[in-house]
Amino acid sequence: MHDVARHAGVSVSTVSYVLTGARPISPATRKRVLAAMAELDYQPNAMARGLASRRSRILGLLMPMDDRGTGATETAFVTGAAEAAARAAHHLLLSPIPAGDVDALRRLASQRILDGALVMEVQMEDPRVEVLRELGVPFVLIGRTRDTTGVPFVDIDFDHTVRGAVEHLLDLGHRSIVFVNHSQEALASGYAPALRTQESFTTVMAEHGLEPLVVTAEDTAAAGRAALRTALVQCPGLSAVLAMNEHALFGVLGELALQGLKVPDDVSVVSMVTSAQVADLATPALTTMTSPGSTLGRLAVEVLLRTLEGSGGPSHQELVTCSLEVRGSSGHLRRTPERTPGGVASR
Amino acid sequence: MHDVARHAGVSVSTVSYVLTGARPISPATRKRVLAAMAELDYQPNAMARGLASRRSRILGLLMPMDDRGTGATETAFVTGAAEAAARAAHHLLLSPIPAGDVDALRRLASQRILDGALVMEVQMEDPRVEVLRELGVPFVLIGRTRDTTGVPFVDIDFDHTVRGAVEHLLDLGHRSIVFVNHSQEALASGYAPALRTQESFTTVMAEHGLEPLVVTAEDTAAAGRAALRTALVQCPGLSAVLAMNEHALFGVLGELALQGLKVPDDVSVVSMVTSAQVADLATPALTTMTSPGSTLGRLAVEVLLRTLEGSGGPSHQELVTCSLEVRGSSGHLRRTPERTPGGVASR
Repeated sequence: MHDVARHAGVSVSTVSYVLTGARPISPATRKRVLAAMAELDYQPNAMARGLASRRSRILGLLMPMDDRGTGATETAFVTGAAEAAARAAHHLLLSPIPAGDVDALRRLASQRILDGALVMEVQMEDPRVEVLRELGVPFVLIGRTRDTTGVPFVDIDFDHTVRGAVEHLLDLGHRSIVFVNHSQEALASGYAPALRTQESFTTVMAEHGLEPLVVTAEDTAAAGRAALRTALVQCPGLSAVLAMNEHALFGVLGELALQGLKVPDDVSVVSMVTSAQVADLATPALTTMTSPGSTLGRLAVEVLLRTLEGSGGPSHQELVTCSLEVRGSSGHLRRTPERTPGGVASR
Repeated sequence: MHDVARHAGVSVSTVSYVLTGARPISPATRKRVLAAMAELDYQPNAMARGLASRRSRILGLLMPMDDRGTGATETAFVTGAAEAAARAAHHLLLSPIPAGDVDALRRLASQRILDGALVMEVQMEDPRVEVLRELGVPFVLIGRTRDTTGVPFVDIDFDHTVRGAVEHLLDLGHRSIVFVNHSQEALASGYAPALRTQESFTTVMAEHGLEPLVVTAEDTAAAGRAALRTALVQCPGLSAVLAMNEHALFGVLGELALQGLKVPDDVSVVSMVTSAQVADLATPALTTMTSPGSTLGRLAVEVLLRTLEGSGGPSHQELVTCSLEVRGSSGHLRRTPERTPGGVASR
């Protein structure tokens, strides 16, 4: 572009305006610029790239969506990212392309309208990383793959988050703690948060000489109800539930009520990676390891923008911890862990 | 573009490839095309528009987001629209630009990367309509403005929806029904669903000779709790709650429990424009006027695509009704409407 500008005797921005039509340029000047391009054999790919990189100022947020919706917790990532993008005079556009639909992503990314991409719902082996690399679209993961070599990401520190939740329950005297994890399908497909939290839970419980009871549930209330019934059969004396699956958690709360178990008097509940808004939907409000959603969204945009400006240096990798916020759903153990309430035993 | 192609002795698609870089073109041909452009004084605005209209296949979904998140109900609009777009080999990209940020929308729309736009969270007087018209971006509202002359839309038939909900409660014997509407701010800002439902509720209650009690609540659980307390003071004998504000509704449910009022034995609850997924989060599950979210999303994309193909004819305007799904939260009136429970009267 600089060569074309010099050759045509105009400024670089004039060349840009001729290409983009962003500002009116006199016919004479336009002719000079186009003639210079022809003479210099100006590369159209570079031109297209130049158009895209100079003009779009659009960051794509790849956020697969399903029927469950994106609750307040997930949406905080979006609003945090959108605000950071707006502050830097960029647009944020969301694409609901499923994580596995590599072809759709390739079609989108090859249109070169995205200056860069943020990737959500990251899997341990995420095919989107390869597509974006192949097409030369700069990206930052909100989450992380198994192999993070050279992959820029911001993510939740799941290990610290699980430890924080378990230690809160241990401090309250609980020993029989069940972890309601994401579904078997999510684990099998390599959904990273499900795998990382399960490993951390198993480790931290073992460190305290306690048995790590894990049940899985799809993220629906019905699955949460069923998961709690399973947990009560496997561990009739359970006194605390840990979950990171918000829809299922509401099923757990409903089932506890149906079983006559009060929160927190009979069973304490802690929700991990949850926003204050969701915590407040329950009565009593949920104790949470609070999701740093808007912080992560903002950080991811800032890292991506630095990459686009070429000032990124080596891949930025950052973990953010969820902080414990104690609300009404967790309390001191009231009963001996050995009790077997009739209502449960009779099932 | 045709003139350039003829002048350069190449096909129109070759001109397009030179402009876009989509396919490699030999240096000699490229030179001829660029020279032809220079000689013919080819208009760059037209070029930019041509590029966009031929290549983007991107539909924009303008979906303002706030901290509350987009629950399963709202997300169904997105998934329905995304699926319909994918079937037609288009991408759907979401923009979280706030409804009032006209400048941001103008910047986005003037980049000409969107073939057309779907507009959500429509206000009675929605400034986005004017911006899109001005910039010549075809659009379809999911919702509708006050004046719908010449404005294509698909929307929920709020009048039928409110009638369906009220008549369900009347059939069950309820006479003291409170409508928990969106906030005063939403009403003041002209948020169309809030205004339309309130008018319908007032009308249908009056038709049955009943007093229409309306309380407002921001869409948070805390506001829902406060709204229910207000309603119980104004109408101690209330036996049914109608709401279309999902977060607030969970606060209503929590407050009912705190007040010792059982659902549905003491108070029936109906949630309007709600998805089955959200209905299932509550225990008992909520009776709903079920949101036709994915249908509306799909319809809106289909209408927009017909408009883009020029086969739209006069503006397509279509209302879709929510259907009643009776679940556990509504039942026959058990007590005389005159009772004043001690727990409530003592507040």
